[in-house]
Amino acid sequence: MSQSSIPPLVPREGWHVMHLFYQIDHAQWSILGDDEKRMAKTRLTELVQEIRATKDTHLLTFAIATPKADLGFMLLTPDLQVASAFEKQLTLSLGPEILSPVYSYLSQTERSEYTTTSEQYAADTLVAEKGLAEGSPEFQQAMKEFEERMDHYLKHRLYPVLPDWPVICFYPMSKRRSGTDNWYSLDFEARRELMSGHARVGRTYSGRILQLITGSTGLDEHEWGVTLLAKDTIEIKAIVYEMRFDEVSARYAEFGDFYIGMQLPLDELFRRVCL
Amino acid sequence: MSQSSIPPLVPREGWHVMHLFYQIDHAQWSILGDDEKRMAKTRLTELVQEIRATKDTHLLTFAIATPKADLGFMLLTPDLQVASAFEKQLTLSLGPEILSPVYSYLSQTERSEYTTTSEQYAADTLVAEKGLAEGSPEFQQAMKEFEERMDHYLKHRLYPVLPDWPVICFYPMSKRRSGTDNWYSLDFEARRELMSGHARVGRTYSGRILQLITGSTGLDEHEWGVTLLAKDTIEIKAIVYEMRFDEVSARYAEFGDFYIGMQLPLDELFRRVCL
Amino acid sequence: MSQSSIPPLVPREGWHVMHLFYQIDHAQWSILGDDEKRMAKTRLTELVQEIRATKDTHLLTFAIATPKADLGFMLLTPDLQVASAFEKQLTLSLGPEILSPVYSYLSQTERSEYTTTSEQYAADTLVAEKGLAEGSPEFQQAMKEFEERMDHYLKHRLYPVLPDWPVICFYPMSKRRSGTDNWYSLDFEARRELMSGHARVGRTYSGRILQLITGSTGLDEHEWGVTLLAKDTIEIKAIVYEMRFDEVSARYAEFGDFYIGMQLPLDELFRRVCL
Amino acid sequence: MSQSSIPPLVPREGWHVMHLFYQIDHAQWSILGDDEKRMAKTRLTELVQEIRATKDTHLLTFAIATPKADLGFMLLTPDLQVASAFEKQLTLSLGPEILSPVYSYLSQTERSEYTTTSEQYAADTLVAEKGLAEGSPEFQQAMKEFEERMDHYLKHRLYPVLPDWPVICFYPMSKRRSGTDNWYSLDFEARRELMSGHARVGRTYSGRILQLITGSTGLDEHEWGVTLLAKDTIEIKAIVYEMRFDEVSARYAEFGDFYIGMQLPLDELFRRVCL
Amino acid sequence: MSQSSIPPLVPREGWHVMHLFYQIDHAQWSILGDDEKRMAKTRLTELVQEIRATKDTHLLTFAIATPKADLGFMLLTPDLQVASAFEKQLTLSLGPEILSPVYSYLSQTERSEYTTTSEQYAADTLVAEKGLAEGSPEFQQAMKEFEERMDHYLKHRLYPVLPDWPVICFYPMSKRRSGTDNWYSLDFEARRELMSGHARVGRTYSGRILQLITGSTGLDEHEWGVTLLAKDTIEIKAIVYEMRFDEVSARYAEFGDFYIGMQLPLDELFRRVCL
Repeated sequence: MSQSSIPPLVPREGWHVMHLFYQIDHAQWSILGDDEKRMAKTRLTELVQEIRATKDTHLLTFAIATPKADLGFMLLTPDLQVASAFEKQLTLSLGPEILSPVYSYLSQTERSEYTTTSEQYAADTLVAEKGLAEGSPEFQQAMKEFEERMDHYLKHRLYPVLPDWPVICFYPMSKRRSGTDNWYSLDFEARRELMSGHARVGRTYSGRILQLITGSTGLDEHEWGVTLLAKDTIEIKAIVYEMRFDEVSARYAEFGDFYIGMQLPLDELFRRVCL
Repeated sequence: MSQSSIPPLVPREGWHVMHLFYQIDHAQWSILGDDEKRMAKTRLTELVQEIRATKDTHLLTFAIATPKADLGFMLLTPDLQVASAFEKQLTLSLGPEILSPVYSYLSQTERSEYTTTSEQYAADTLVAEKGLAEGSPEFQQAMKEFEERMDHYLKHRLYPVLPDWPVICFYPMSKRRSGTDNWYSLDFEARRELMSGHARVGRTYSGRILQLITGSTGLDEHEWGVTLLAKDTIEIKAIVYEMRFDEVSARYAEFGDFYIGMQLPLDELFRRVCL
Repeated sequence: MSQSSIPPLVPREGWHVMHLFYQIDHAQWSILGDDEKRMAKTRLTELVQEIRATKDTHLLTFAIATPKADLGFMLLTPDLQVASAFEKQLTLSLGPEILSPVYSYLSQTERSEYTTTSEQYAADTLVAEKGLAEGSPEFQQAMKEFEERMDHYLKHRLYPVLPDWPVICFYPMSKRRSGTDNWYSLDFEARRELMSGHARVGRTYSGRILQLITGSTGLDEHEWGVTLLAKDTIEIKAIVYEMRFDEVSARYAEFGDFYIGMQLPLDELFRRVCL
Repeated sequence: MSQSSIPPLVPREGWHVMHLFYQIDHAQWSILGDDEKRMAKTRLTELVQEIRATKDTHLLTFAIATPKADLGFMLLTPDLQVASAFEKQLTLSLGPEILSPVYSYLSQTERSEYTTTSEQYAADTLVAEKGLAEGSPEFQQAMKEFEERMDHYLKHRLYPVLPDWPVICFYPMSKRRSGTDNWYSLDFEARRELMSGHARVGRTYSGRILQLITGSTGLDEHEWGVTLLAKDTIEIKAIVYEMRFDEVSARYAEFGDFYIGMQLPLDELFRRVCL
Repeated sequence: MSQSSIPPLVPREGWHVMHLFYQIDHAQWSILGDDEKRMAKTRLTELVQEIRATKDTHLLTFAIATPKADLGFMLLTPDLQVASAFEKQLTLSLGPEILSPVYSYLSQTERSEYTTTSEQYAADTLVAEKGLAEGSPEFQQAMKEFEERMDHYLKHRLYPVLPDWPVICFYPMSKRRSGTDNWYSLDFEARRELMSGHARVGRTYSGRILQLITGSTGLDEHEWGVTLLAKDTIEIKAIVYEMRFDEVSARYAEFGDFYIGMQLPLDELFRRVCL
């Protein structure tokens, strides 16, 4: 897509993320002839291919369970100008007024402020706690491992490659600022400790749940968007339920609505939503 | 229905449950000719038959009291892919834009975490509290009875067969996390005790009210869906009102809206909603 | 109306009550020819007559002040199946999409749990407090009076005949369960005392305001529906305002929206709403 | 307008007040021919004249700033039957579906319960505090002045004649009943003292802001409607902002949405909203 | 634009500000012929030019990210009559029902009450704290600098010229009046101190974020509108997130929804939103 005349809006790290949920106007769709329907589906298919062929850009396509919505996209791409252009095109791809947006969310991938990613801190720790001599082979090996872990971590948080697991769950959330339950009045250490307990629960679902938290303070209605990918809805229910007992959620979380989708290739998706 | 190319999404126990409430667009309906109307009703009738013929799948059909909605379905089936496909087809069965969804809910059947279903625990209790010798005929008889009770319990909670009682009530609910009334900050024992009092009230309505609680944390807007079946609306009002005084509800429950339906065979349902 | 094949849903005491508020689609109406309009109004008129001719069934018809809604019905009838059938027919009576529902409410007439209606209790009291000999003429006379009062009370609460006073006000309400203001955590005596003070205020409006409280816990969004009939809006404002200072309302009541209607015969109603 | 067959609904003092806000459906409007548009505007113009020619009846017409709404009316008239009939006619005056209501409010003019208007109290005070002899010329002069003040006060509160100042602001409000901030749990003296401080702030805007408070407890969603007329929006912002620091607002007020209109003669109003 | 017959509504200082967000009805648009589309776009283009040519009037045009809205305008102009007329024309500029308003906001530029802009205070301070003799060359130089700073400050707050930075963020906010977190119960000094800490955070984003706070108490749903201009969405997220920990936000702020736009010249904007 040529957007050449508009300077890009690429954050200094991370990507823009859009979650897009649509309902299908089947009355409008039923008016179209078979050829028009075929052309509409081809147009959407080609647009999806174009988006997926764009550098550093990912697009998940899914059907939504229950009539809350019919189909959804999750778009990850660096440049907001590109994201916005793709989004307008996706909305119109099947023709005017076939897809009508029922919910959407704008966020950005971001590092967690509670995870130390500083090389200096890692090096100091190796010397002070493990007694390694700076520059020694053991030290260098340990630093190499640290860097690999960080690469992996950042890749997951900032430049995630999402698996094609069948279930996708999205919900937005904020931290509470209410009476004595005010997250933003806690100091950093208290918040970090609470978050590390929260993360421990998350890690017990490793391999079964992939969780991506993206930031949206100032960008959309809530402060974060949470995307869960799973092989099974029962895992989604289990992790969200278990975490609700964690103090971070029990006392400090406000949740928006939950959307459950099923990742499907486009032809299956069309069949599912009766296009 | 052939969904052969898509791997099923069947939870390791229990079923997916969808509650679907629709309004009828009578202006669109009135445009149809008599033949088209007959064909539309036949299409829905055959779809209902197909759904009911599907393994481990149940479908309740009902008219909704008051214009909040016109008709509703409750669908129970193991595979979310199948549930979702059936739901899209139900929505369109009478033609595009005849049924427009006004509310829906996704949940799963689940065991209660507060009911002990462990065989080991039962066996130990028989030995310790009733003084039965392990393996003795009395012990074996008691264990058999325990297993039957558990079968019955799990059948009711995980694989329910719902009676055709005329009144159906659905409402979603969550547990409160608000100031000093924070359910998720209570420890397990306190919650179990509160829940057992709650259950005692429920049991006094046995035979008059069938209550099915399905879990939806992470799946939909609230944490549970409650389906009540009754022979009389006065029982619905009585149980919900009485339970409101129970601490579990009084201090810890947040309720969504309540939907009252009347189970009707399809031909009566069509007549009721003037199709 | 023949609903013969469906078993009735009649509560063991009291009636079902529906409040129905509609907006008129004048664009659709204006498309109709004069004959069609006349036929539509005749259809609604005949339906209203049929409903009013049904045993134990009452129907109030009124125009709504302000464009919140155009017209409203209040339907009282024992059988929910019948209520539901009448409601669907009322909605469609002027033709598809002329009346579009903007608000509705389902409730049941019910006794107050705070008013003693027990004959035994009355008899005991006569003996213990008034010193009457059981079976004496004075005792029998007093019991007769008690029974008449109870007949009157129950008639008003369970089987009300509403006067044709021009103003009708409807609002739903719930009792609060919030922090230290939790109605459902109070014991019965505390609630009865609070309610009796509340009732005392109500009685000072006797003859000017007829108040009917119907129960909707488990049936609709709030716990009660309140219908006020009056000869003057200023009385409505006065009673609701005065009661707001009563602790029952001040600390424990949550109110929904308020609808003000004017009871009108159908021909005046049609003229009012420009049909 | 002849409403002769319906008994009027005139409160024993004061008037009914309706605030009506509409959006214009320009798509429907653009379908009309020039003649039809002219006739529609003439119809509305004549209706406005008819309303204004009705005894004790006032109608303000204004454009709404921002697309929240396009145009608005404020109608003051004694009889609710008349108010309701006029309102339905205003809604339809430009043709079916040209004006679609986006917000409306029903209230009544009323005296403040915190302002003493009792002649007896005034007479007693003159005797007790000023030492005037009852019936003396000074006493009679003072009572005459009191009556004039009361006439003026009641005229403003109960039978207001609103100036044609260009800016009109409307918002509904209620007093809070929440935890320790419960207006309705305060005693009369505490409320009167708080209100008199509130009124003092109001008086400093005299001549710049005309404030009309009308009662709506039991009539509409909030407890009062507030209408502010001003020569300048900056005065509106100033008085509402300053009052927010007053304890009556700071602790006890809940506000609905704010609507800003500009009073315009009908021809200018048509031009403004592009009719 | 000639509005000559209507007296202007110009505040004694500052401008009126409207934020306008629209969705495009592509079904209606697709019905237009190529010539009609071209004419529609020309009409909007010429209107934008006319608005920008109006004295003291600014108009920002932008695309909205995510389908929350499609395009937006921010209009700053002294006279509310002019603002309102322009707004109605913008809404209709592409033809009836092409642009449908999804959100709008009315506010005014205003000085902060917490920033001292008094010359007298500045002069006194120079004498008292810096020991300068009134009228001395140093005093005069310092006063000149003070006046320049004030000019700059007022220009930014009251008569802002907004840069063409690509990202625009708008959100409305109010100060909380809830239990112990009641901004309006704090005294002036406490509020000034809190606000100065808040402003300090803001200043660290100088050159990266331009923040314009406009007042809307009494004018619209919230008390202030906040417009942020930035070169990058990551700065928007950073400043809003950092400020959330500031006590002013943490304890006292209530936020509305957030809208993210991208400033684009009209031709690029048309292309972006597929017109």
